[in-house]
Amino acid sequence: MLNREGCPENVLAIKDALDALEGRWKLLILLSLSERKKRFKELSREIYGITDKTLSKELKLLEANKLITRNVQSTFPPTVEYAITAHGKSIQIVLDALYQWGTKHRKEIIGK
Amino acid sequence: MLNREGCPENVLAIKDALDALEGRWKLLILLSLSERKKRFKELSREIYGITDKTLSKELKLLEANKLITRNVQSTFPPTVEYAITAHGKSIQIVLDALYQWGTKHRKEIIGK
Repeated sequence: MLNREGCPENVLAIKDALDALEGRWKLLILLSLSERKKRFKELSREIYGITDKTLSKELKLLEANKLITRNVQSTFPPTVEYAITAHGKSIQIVLDALYQWGTKHRKEIIGK
Repeated sequence: MLNREGCPENVLAIKDALDALEGRWKLLILLSLSERKKRFKELSREIYGITDKTLSKELKLLEANKLITRNVQSTFPPTVEYAITAHGKSIQIVLDALYQWGTKHRKEIIGK
């Protein structure tokens, strides 16, 4: 049984992961930050189709889940940089699985 | 660069996987069907919090992505059963990664 009362431990862990990575932007933001630290405008330019409002919301959620840090640089005017955390980098296992399966899925659906 | 023009092949495969599994219900439906074939009402009861309208929509999307099949049984009245496909079962690699990471994430966030 998969409902809340009888929710086996494995489904709870999967739901936790889904909640933390929920939506299509978080993994792409983490993928981008896994290259190097970046500012808001860099992320906004790089991640195709994301609005500044959505990017701002997603960055806050990623920070709350300890997947990234937000660092205010003591420049004038102050600048803000986002960096992936060690915990954020541990998502690589999920990215690798998504990459493998996504490649297989593409072949299954469009045959190449 | 991760935007559409210069979108490296790995990000495209990850986006394909995210699109096919997008949202929090599809993986839970596949997880439920990986046990055995099930009817609509069974799925609706088992997957905590899903509405019939959402379940119906998600089942159609999963079918379109060849992850499940919809089989009309020649009973009277006719009954409909949903079953996971071989392609659907191949998602296990993503579920395993989500389970591993979700367990780690839970420890990171709530310390147990």
